[in-house]
This record gives sequence, C-alpha cells and structure tokens, in this order.
Amino acid sequence: MKVLILGGGGMVGQKLALHLAAEGLNGVCDLEVTLFDMAFPEGGAPAAKRVVGDITDASLVAGLLVEKPEVIFHLASVVSGEAEQDYVKGWAVNMSPFWAMLEELRGLHEASGGGYRPRVVFTSSIAVFGGPYPEKIGDEFLSAPQTSYGAQKAICELMLGDASRKGFVDGISIRLPTICVRPGKPNLAASGFFSNIIREPLVGQKAVLPVSEEVRHWHASPRSAVGFLTHAAGLDLGRLEGRRALNMPGISCTVAEQIEALRRVAGEEAVKLIRRERDPAIERIVEFWPRDFEPTRALELGFRAENSFDEIIRIHLEDELGQR
Amino acid sequence: MKVLILGGGGMVGQKLALHLAAEGLNGVCDLEVTLFDMAFPEGGAPAAKRVVGDITDASLVAGLLVEKPEVIFHLASVVSGEAEQDYVKGWAVNMSPFWAMLEELRGLHEASGGGYRPRVVFTSSIAVFGGPYPEKIGDEFLSAPQTSYGAQKAICELMLGDASRKGFVDGISIRLPTICVRPGKPNLAASGFFSNIIREPLVGQKAVLPVSEEVRHWHASPRSAVGFLTHAAGLDLGRLEGRRALNMPGISCTVAEQIEALRRVAGEEAVKLIRRERDPAIERIVEFWPRDFEPTRALELGFRAENSFDEIIRIHLEDELGQR
Repeated sequence: MKVLILGGGGMVGQKLALHLAAEGLNGVCDLEVTLFDMAFPEGGAPAAKRVVGDITDASLVAGLLVEKPEVIFHLASVVSGEAEQDYVKGWAVNMSPFWAMLEELRGLHEASGGGYRPRVVFTSSIAVFGGPYPEKIGDEFLSAPQTSYGAQKAICELMLGDASRKGFVDGISIRLPTICVRPGKPNLAASGFFSNIIREPLVGQKAVLPVSEEVRHWHASPRSAVGFLTHAAGLDLGRLEGRRALNMPGISCTVAEQIEALRRVAGEEAVKLIRRERDPAIERIVEFWPRDFEPTRALELGFRAENSFDEIIRIHLEDELGQR
Repeated sequence: MKVLILGGGGMVGQKLALHLAAEGLNGVCDLEVTLFDMAFPEGGAPAAKRVVGDITDASLVAGLLVEKPEVIFHLASVVSGEAEQDYVKGWAVNMSPFWAMLEELRGLHEASGGGYRPRVVFTSSIAVFGGPYPEKIGDEFLSAPQTSYGAQKAICELMLGDASRKGFVDGISIRLPTICVRPGKPNLAASGFFSNIIREPLVGQKAVLPVSEEVRHWHASPRSAVGFLTHAAGLDLGRLEGRRALNMPGISCTVAEQIEALRRVAGEEAVKLIRRERDPAIERIVEFWPRDFEPTRALELGFRAENSFDEIIRIHLEDELGQR
C-alpha cells in the first residue's frame, strides 16, 4: 500500500512515519511510505522515501500524487503564529496548495475512469473555532475562526468535504487538540508554552509561563495524534454521513491542573523551575482559544485520547525520555 | 460615494440598483454606482454605469476596484443548480475570483497607507448549512454544506472574515433565505419552484410543484433582500464582534402554507393552476435544505423581513404587478 505524508518532516509526521515502519497501517504491513517536507530531522523515520520540497511547488506535489498513493496524510502547514505574522505566506502555504492537490486528485480520479479515489486525512485544528464559547464545544458548534490559520484550516475542511461528496477522494478532517507534550524545540506556535512548562522542568530546565494559571485548554499527546491519524485512515467514512470534519477527543485542563499533574509525576523540584512572566501578546491570542469539548461523534467512531493530564506527562516520559 | 455592484445584472442586483437610484444608500444620495455583470436586462436600472464582463477576468475586476468604491456589493455567483452540475465552473466562478478580489483590495489598502478600507457586503446563502438540523437553526449552528454552492459560499465567508479581521476591508456576509417570489423566468436554481407556484398562478399560468406539500423552507422577498443589503452597507460592523457571517431573517412555511396564502390572496382559481408532479432529483436536493431559523443576532442588528407569506405575495403584487 502506498502512503504519502505531506509534511512528513514535522514532529507529528515523523512520529506517524515511525509508527508505520514499526506497526504498519491498520494491519497492513507492506507499506511504501513517501515523506514530503521542506526539511527532515537528522536520523528520523526509517523505511520511508524522503522528498525535499515546498508544498507550494504544484508540479512537485503533482509528481508525488501521480504515483497514486492509496492514503494521503496532509500535515503540511505554516503554524498558527507564523500564519498570523505573515498573512501572505499563511494563505499561500495553508490554502492554495490544498486546493491544487484536490484538483490534481480529481484529474487522476477522472483519468482512471473513477477507479482511483484515495483516502485523504487532513489535520485540521481546534483553531477553526472562535469565542465566545459554550461551556463545552459540541459537534454542531459553528466554525468562526479568529486567526488566519484557523480560517485556512476551516476552508480546507470545506474543500475536502465537497471533493469527497463528489467522490474524487474519500476525505476526513480531524481537528487536533493542542498537542502536548511537544518534544524538541519550541516552534512559532503560540501554544508552545503548554508544552514548555512540562518538557523543560522534566529535564531540569527552566521554563516560562506567559499566561495566567486559570487558562483552560484542550490537549492530547503526540501518541494520540498518531492514533487519530491511523484510525482516520482506516475508518469507514460513510459513517460520517456527510460531515467530514471531526473534533478529536482530548483532555480539558487549566494550567494550574497541568502544574499539579507535573507535581504528582515529577515532584516539587520540577514545579519550581516554572517562572511566571505574563506576555500580553500571547495572553491576547490564548484568550480566544477553545477550553473544553464534548467530542461525541469522534468517541462514537472510536477515536481515543488520554484520560488525564498525568497520563499525557507519562506518555512523554515513555516516548521521549525512555522511561517505563 | 462610489458603489460597485458585482453581479449587478441579476435580479437582486438590478433591484438594488433601482433602489439606490430612487432612494440613495442610507441617506446618501450623491452616489456613483457601477454595475458589473456578464449581461444586463433590457431597460434596467437608471443612473448607473454598466460594465459587461466575466468575474473570472481578474484584470477587468481589478480595473473596477482601482476606482476605490467605498461600498462593494458582491452578488456575482453561479447559482446552486449550475454549481452542482458543473463542479469546475462553480469553483472557478464562486471561489477563486472572490479571493482575487480580496487580494486586490489588500493591495489597494496597503498602497493607500491603510486609508482605503471598503465596506464589502457579500451575499452568502442558507446553503452553507446541511442536515440534520435542529428544529430551528440558531446563530451558532455549524456550517456543513451539502452542495458545492454552499461550500463555496462558506469559504468566501471565511476569507472575508479574515481579511476584515486583518483590516484590509470591512466585510459582512449575509446569508440570504430563498428569495421568493422571484420575478421573471425560472433560472437553474433548484429552489425555483417555490416562486413558480406563486408567480405563475397569479398571472393565470400553470405551474408545477415537484415536491411534497409538507416541505418546509425559509423565505424572504426580493424587497427584503435589498433591505438586507443596504442595511448591511450602513451597519457598524464592530457590533458583529468578529463573527461576520449572519443568518438573515425570513418566513418559515411549508409549501401547503404557501398555497393557503395564495388562496387567501388570489382565490381558488389561482390554486387550481398548480399541478403536482414529483421530481425525485429536486426532492433529493430539497430534502437537505434548512427549514427554520432563529436569527437572533440579525434581528438585534436591525435586519427585517416579512411577517407572513401572505405579505411576501402582496409585495410581489405591488412590486412586480403594479397592484396597491
């Protein structure tokens, strides 16, 4: 089975590739995996072909699609902070190439007499939502994004929904919670601190908390993100009944609750490494973020996340720091 | 004040132009109105400059925008039935030129040092919704379109919302109910019959009802549509608090209730001219259409429609058949 991961060099893309190499995809082990990204980390996922390039290079992407991958994971994106700082780049990377990809796939579908209809798993985000919010965001809550990133993700969802309804592709958009604990270095995502305040203290490093401890947010681990993607790749999408964008499950907790979980898992010494230093720019962004969800449909369809923030920290210890 | 009406040759565009010529725009009578469309009806709205062209011709549209209209009404669109039949044309007309227009306006905004920031009133549609529906669709119900037309409208709403948030334009998307009674000849819209069964019998002509009398739908008159547009042009959009797509008010009624209203206004002879002939293709489309709304925000912001379907028929008699 041919699998293409657009954005395969990123954190989630690499974890997905490692998972596919180790365990196959939903029981299929004979995989031919191609990763596409602007850059790849040293080492990285084995048994996968790497193609270096820019997602805005339509002919390069077309060259990958013409191989007719059965499953396409689309993770390529400028992150929220960067899309907000650079409007032109955000739209050029996060919207236009997605439309170009769907048009390319429509051409391949038609040229194949309708035989080629790949599964497309698009990583959307809870950034498609904007406040004011209900206590818990349900599956029928409007998408009213308050960032360019969120608008771009919501638009791709709509494009994918229509292309799927028309039958060129068989697509699903999964709205990821904030992925936490994010390993490695901070990126330009404004959500970075949610991970920083856990990851850094766990290895004896200081971390800055730029918002109030009262801030509530929606989290899932990188391991859950990979689980969402592979589950989405194998699901009978007829069950979505035409609503192909799904809120993924996660854990709702305040920063204070995150810190309490850190205390339980790693002790007071770790907690002491968190320095409070409010950043009004980040506070203003985070103010409009979703806090809690009721992801009924995703749960019914078998998507699963963690049950507590303690579990999220333990997964980080296992997957990143080799603890059992 | 310069006003540009994209899609100014269509039914609503022409009525809007006539209104502007007769009454100005929210008290401003010194208007310089330009209408842009592929074709214009004989006669038509006076005191307006007409430009014939295709909305997909970016340089032609840019030539109109460079005049820096203070208000841009965007009504240009392939209708729902045609967008569904011709996927390529639908997306090429209903999405791409809208994005090109916003990019052009961003350029003009920046070139003017931020001084030029036009009001953009985009005519969206209740087609952005898809079933299953609640009893009444509220202002926070998700947009899950089940037609290409609906997806294209929802995407333009998101683009306009983000461009407005960024301050290049000051935009609002108004989601029109089905406009009824539509004068003139039927077009390719699958909703045509809602008007046909009223308009034709009122002038002694037969009309076909292709769906069950139980079908419930959401209507407003052409006069209301013009009222929505002009009200949207004058509104302080800060009041929208970042949610710039609004469900417009209307009348929810079944086809049976429409027919009863016709009976009250025009008698049994008119009703007898309606022939029932179910069309499964139209029934399948209409099955997924919204039935009723609770447009709280629009009402709070001063948008007004009719109070009964009888009133909708009387407006047709007044505005189209010269009755008082």
